[in-house]
Amino acid sequence: MFDFKYYTPTKVVFGKGTESKVAELIKEFGGKKVLIHYGGGSVIRSGLMKKVTDTLDEAGISYVSLGGAVPNPRLGLVREGIELCKKENIDFLLAVGGGSAIDSAKAIGYGVFNEGDVWDFYDYKRQAKGCLPLGVILTIAATGSEMSDSSVITKEEGLVKRGYSSDFGRAKFAIMNPELTMTLPDYQTSCGCTDIMMHTMERYFSNGGHMELTDSLAEGLLRTVKENAKILVKDPKNYDARAEVMWAGSLAHNGLTGCGSDGGDWMTHKLEHELGGLYDVAHGAGLAAIWGSWARYVYKDCLPRFKRFAIKVMDVPEVGTDEEIALKGIEAVEDFYREINMPTNLRELGVNATEEDMKVMAHKCAVGVNGGKGSAKFLKEEDMFAIFKAAK
Amino acid sequence: MFDFKYYTPTKVVFGKGTESKVAELIKEFGGKKVLIHYGGGSVIRSGLMKKVTDTLDEAGISYVSLGGAVPNPRLGLVREGIELCKKENIDFLLAVGGGSAIDSAKAIGYGVFNEGDVWDFYDYKRQAKGCLPLGVILTIAATGSEMSDSSVITKEEGLVKRGYSSDFGRAKFAIMNPELTMTLPDYQTSCGCTDIMMHTMERYFSNGGHMELTDSLAEGLLRTVKENAKILVKDPKNYDARAEVMWAGSLAHNGLTGCGSDGGDWMTHKLEHELGGLYDVAHGAGLAAIWGSWARYVYKDCLPRFKRFAIKVMDVPEVGTDEEIALKGIEAVEDFYREINMPTNLRELGVNATEEDMKVMAHKCAVGVNGGKGSAKFLKEEDMFAIFKAAK
Repeated sequence: MFDFKYYTPTKVVFGKGTESKVAELIKEFGGKKVLIHYGGGSVIRSGLMKKVTDTLDEAGISYVSLGGAVPNPRLGLVREGIELCKKENIDFLLAVGGGSAIDSAKAIGYGVFNEGDVWDFYDYKRQAKGCLPLGVILTIAATGSEMSDSSVITKEEGLVKRGYSSDFGRAKFAIMNPELTMTLPDYQTSCGCTDIMMHTMERYFSNGGHMELTDSLAEGLLRTVKENAKILVKDPKNYDARAEVMWAGSLAHNGLTGCGSDGGDWMTHKLEHELGGLYDVAHGAGLAAIWGSWARYVYKDCLPRFKRFAIKVMDVPEVGTDEEIALKGIEAVEDFYREINMPTNLRELGVNATEEDMKVMAHKCAVGVNGGKGSAKFLKEEDMFAIFKAAK
Repeated sequence: MFDFKYYTPTKVVFGKGTESKVAELIKEFGGKKVLIHYGGGSVIRSGLMKKVTDTLDEAGISYVSLGGAVPNPRLGLVREGIELCKKENIDFLLAVGGGSAIDSAKAIGYGVFNEGDVWDFYDYKRQAKGCLPLGVILTIAATGSEMSDSSVITKEEGLVKRGYSSDFGRAKFAIMNPELTMTLPDYQTSCGCTDIMMHTMERYFSNGGHMELTDSLAEGLLRTVKENAKILVKDPKNYDARAEVMWAGSLAHNGLTGCGSDGGDWMTHKLEHELGGLYDVAHGAGLAAIWGSWARYVYKDCLPRFKRFAIKVMDVPEVGTDEEIALKGIEAVEDFYREINMPTNLRELGVNATEEDMKVMAHKCAVGVNGGKGSAKFLKEEDMFAIFKAAK
């Protein structure tokens, strides 16, 4: 068991109609002039944005809006947001949307608070000294960014996708109304469930440090998301299933399911970041397309964890050798992906990558992790290439 | 499933030697003049206090000390602490110890920040508008007060024990070094494990609102504490078991295991508060002495939960009627209490209460909850009396 820090200051307000609390919460955390940052037009078409601005108007809180945050949110828009905040003397950020809007808002917050180029943080060149305070109205359960310390931004030049983590970026509050996620396309719902589970699986599959309490919380969370993801495929308007998934999304990535571990593996995420940078695929689907190939490549080096996972999460009977049980667990995950209409390889993801593309992605990934990374198994560039090839 | 709020801003620094971070953390949260509040001499004899004051001296943080917080901490000392803080212009509280020191420090914090009599808050007369910032170095895993919003104080006059809950009382940071709990007497360790489990059991046994994710986290936590409590009876210096129990103590009472429920039942706690007020017994032992009688009195009104608990937490085989399974679960809890040397009735607790005493306790308890309370089963004064009698 390793020492750990756990810091989740985000005030969560969870349930039906909770978006009506937004002005009250912004005031509680001292916001006077707000940038509302969002993605596409869906939050406008659904009427959510009008509800939000009406509430702010009524409370006498002034605001400006900036839309356009896309999946794999772009540095260009972040820079635009920073300029806008400086020009308008913004002192509070409100992200309305999913991980794209939240991550983009975090990056804007770092850029406004700190001198110099905001990309420096994502390029591992220096640490932020603070961030503009941020609140969230969540409309997609997936990235966990509403409670996590991390954000991921893509630089257009060279399509470089990088993450930056800092406690300064943790949201002051997160409004979570499961009803707001009901209008999501089914594919996005399944992508979200995949991403949520992966945030905890990345922490779970490690060779350094374990805590029984953390493991049992992680396993409970993974079982819950798995079962409710299957419910949502058939019954997308099921409130309870939406709520289970939404709350799991926050807990899967706020640090809870990693306490006492070495920090986890995270190589499936790193490999997917290269895919997402190059092909602009949905993050959750990209993870699903890679995970099985990653798991088969590394499981022998992390056998006790893969065995435990198979039994405790995927309900594999404890029959046969450890390897057989571990492999059945991996197969069960792929069966689950198919059941919720997620891909299990690049072809099903719609990515027709040549070997040359894979070499480029493996190289960029290796550079991004200073040559190598991984706790279940330490992967170097040639391993990354092999996993991409296996995922074809 | 009910709507919920979840707010756990406490920065947790967990692991070996983490007490050395105390000055750094106090500075991070703006403390300049500190009241160190503690209980008996054990934190002095162990050398912990010297480590703490050396660290503060080195960092140039000034402080005064106030010891004497006892189990079931007293209002008199709280008033003394409030006066001392005002006289010394204290701007930060550091509790070093377990629930007694932390709860007492929270009450001092309310008293310093707010005008008027601090007992008003505990007497449900008004709400606090703030609290002096508080940090914790935890030496006993039990009450969860290091991350919870609650504190419990006993007024000497009439021996009235009352709890007050407010987000203002949540600690800014909690330093948790499992090694600091190793010198606890075995009885106190078992009392702590009982209290920890009960904080989550009180939330679990309810008839209003449930969330599968919350339930599975609660069950994982309860299983973990149960197994590690048994380890600690035989091997009190087991670091990993100490760490599991310590972290579970915080998560059991910070709100996590109640998300989506109606808030839980809490009647075992309320009944024990009367015992603790009158007989000054250890809180955890008092809970163990009452729980079985409470459970047998209420289980038919909350049968699905008692059945699920029996199977998922106490490993009762799913054989027989629901009632039989539920009763076997209750018996298994009592067997567990005996295994960790906890009482299962008042006699074993060392309390020889007359029927008259029980009438007084039931009456005080009923007054304290405005006539009645309980989610597993709503209890009125006569029910409380019946449970005390059954626990004899």
